[in-house]
Amino acid sequence: MSVEFGFRLFETDNCARRGEVLTSRGTIHTPAFMPVGTQATVKAMYPGHVRSSGTDILLGNSYHLMLRPGAERVARLGGLHQFMNWPYPILTDSGGFQIMSLSTLCKITEDGVLFRSHIDGAQHMLTVEKAVNIQFLLGADIQMQLDECVAFPCHQDKLTQAMHRSLRWAERAQIAFGNKPTQALFAIVQGGISEEIRIESAHSLRSMDFKGYAIGGLAVGESQKDMLRILDVTIPLLPKNKPRYLMGVGTPEDILFAVARGIDMFDCVLPTRAGRHGHAYTRLGRLNLRNACHAEDSRPLDPESDCPAANGYSRAYLHHLFKAEEMLGAMILTWANIAYYQKLMSDIRLAIKEKRFTAFTEMTHYDWKMEKKKPSGKN
Amino acid sequence: MSVEFGFRLFETDNCARRGEVLTSRGTIHTPAFMPVGTQATVKAMYPGHVRSSGTDILLGNSYHLMLRPGAERVARLGGLHQFMNWPYPILTDSGGFQIMSLSTLCKITEDGVLFRSHIDGAQHMLTVEKAVNIQFLLGADIQMQLDECVAFPCHQDKLTQAMHRSLRWAERAQIAFGNKPTQALFAIVQGGISEEIRIESAHSLRSMDFKGYAIGGLAVGESQKDMLRILDVTIPLLPKNKPRYLMGVGTPEDILFAVARGIDMFDCVLPTRAGRHGHAYTRLGRLNLRNACHAEDSRPLDPESDCPAANGYSRAYLHHLFKAEEMLGAMILTWANIAYYQKLMSDIRLAIKEKRFTAFTEMTHYDWKMEKKKPSGKN
Repeated sequence: MSVEFGFRLFETDNCARRGEVLTSRGTIHTPAFMPVGTQATVKAMYPGHVRSSGTDILLGNSYHLMLRPGAERVARLGGLHQFMNWPYPILTDSGGFQIMSLSTLCKITEDGVLFRSHIDGAQHMLTVEKAVNIQFLLGADIQMQLDECVAFPCHQDKLTQAMHRSLRWAERAQIAFGNKPTQALFAIVQGGISEEIRIESAHSLRSMDFKGYAIGGLAVGESQKDMLRILDVTIPLLPKNKPRYLMGVGTPEDILFAVARGIDMFDCVLPTRAGRHGHAYTRLGRLNLRNACHAEDSRPLDPESDCPAANGYSRAYLHHLFKAEEMLGAMILTWANIAYYQKLMSDIRLAIKEKRFTAFTEMTHYDWKMEKKKPSGKN
Repeated sequence: MSVEFGFRLFETDNCARRGEVLTSRGTIHTPAFMPVGTQATVKAMYPGHVRSSGTDILLGNSYHLMLRPGAERVARLGGLHQFMNWPYPILTDSGGFQIMSLSTLCKITEDGVLFRSHIDGAQHMLTVEKAVNIQFLLGADIQMQLDECVAFPCHQDKLTQAMHRSLRWAERAQIAFGNKPTQALFAIVQGGISEEIRIESAHSLRSMDFKGYAIGGLAVGESQKDMLRILDVTIPLLPKNKPRYLMGVGTPEDILFAVARGIDMFDCVLPTRAGRHGHAYTRLGRLNLRNACHAEDSRPLDPESDCPAANGYSRAYLHHLFKAEEMLGAMILTWANIAYYQKLMSDIRLAIKEKRFTAFTEMTHYDWKMEKKKPSGKN
């Protein structure tokens, strides 16, 4: 297939929007949640279960993949989709964010980022152009530009400089990316929690006409209130006919609030990481399966879920698996969490379609409080 | 269902036999391999995949389960089958072997075994009667008697004493077990690698008329030659109309040799443990996926396997998953190994049925050498 990359907007409900991103490898129904497949695997999940849980698109981390197994090796093996048994859309990040958070040395120049691998200490230089090329080698359907990620909190001057550099890098990335009708390169709006800097970034990037726009540098330690304030000033400046991606977000609540403001795409390690640590996200709230209150609870996580991981094992069993440090606990909860997130996204899309997103948000918030209100359910 | 426990012998091919063990929870096609579900889970596998790989019966470890989550708790939660989502037959061991290998204190008296938990150091006394009761609480379809397991190698005197004690314990276990038509208690022949002691053990246990007979105390460090010599003297003394279970065995080769001598049931951690450590058992031999030769090998483990784990991922990808310490590597290889073991058992049963087991054994040994002969298969 060689479907041209595109975005269709179906309905809006206040600022919330429902649509679809078209790619050669399939359609992404938006608002969409992208599970994170850092090292060419969504941790503890078979790719078939990721798909059957309702996932349209995965995120891959260029930083990890360029170091191991290496982008050239992935290319020789047929690209990331074939390598990891995921024939559906993949978005890759540029590698910048993880270099800045994981590698030991990290020196930013106008050219790019000099860093040491966290695996073997080897020195690498990631330029803007190399980031584009690595993502080509991986075979990404959607690429992200290299940007300069600053720590939070950050001085206004440093923030402005980093944003300006990210703008210059966006231009270089666009040139390096060239004209690829079936793939997309997204720009990243930066500027921390400064409204002025965000506004300048969004304005400038918009004029460069990217196929999609991400908002980066949020969910890095600022309050939810600050995050939403930045969304409120940034989103209206982005083109309506392009997908909008809020990077690294977030909790189910963050997602509801960001969808309400017009975000179309999300990624976050939360459902997978929480699953590995014994935390379950359900329709009726979050549970810590390590807690003793679950030790003799014969109820499944959610009997109304369609997901075998959420409806097929008792809480008592999951409690036991985590106490006994058995891998199956992480496997079941990761699957159940991804299924919950994707069910939430599908419910969100339906609510927008039916113009009842505000009511849906209220009801969902109400439901999330149920687990705390119910008796512990000893059998 | 309340099917009476039983054993039917269909064919013999020299000493190899094909039959079935009948239980309320389903039929066990013999020769059968029982994957080990130590802590109420076959490590790294969903129970549905254990089943779809061709598993008729699982082994559960009483020692682990009595300590965590506790046999009473499992009983309150509906028994081990319900607890671990495995509605098919389960055999439980008595706990003795693991107490003697895992716990810090281990004092054997005529009454039973005094030991400390390896989890919290708490002191427990496991008597013969308690071992039976724990297995009742778990809901085992097949129970094993408590026996005294000695270290290998072991002095003749000690070996004789332990065997005699195990005989006395067998009688007590039989009394404690009582008359349970739908369940079975198996006796365990002991005696290390001493033919005289094995003969006495087998003779005495046979006269007690158990529903099944296990051979214990092998695969504990002796040579394969010694193991087969002991099988050769022991098996002819066991009743033909009862299932014979060789405990803790073994490699695919051990299984072929033991089936040839008339063994019906096996259990071993090898396919699951090997899978977690990057080793794959296939039709064409054993592979270590950590080896660099697999790094760019795009072939699956075995394109002719019916198992999605064995035919659906490249060796290069599996190599990457183990290098990157991703859980999915252990998940895929464990599944592929259990599927290989069960395919081997099903091929063994067919070969016995068609009276060509010797030729099958030769061909299988020939095939196992193929991986070493083939080019490494760079793509």
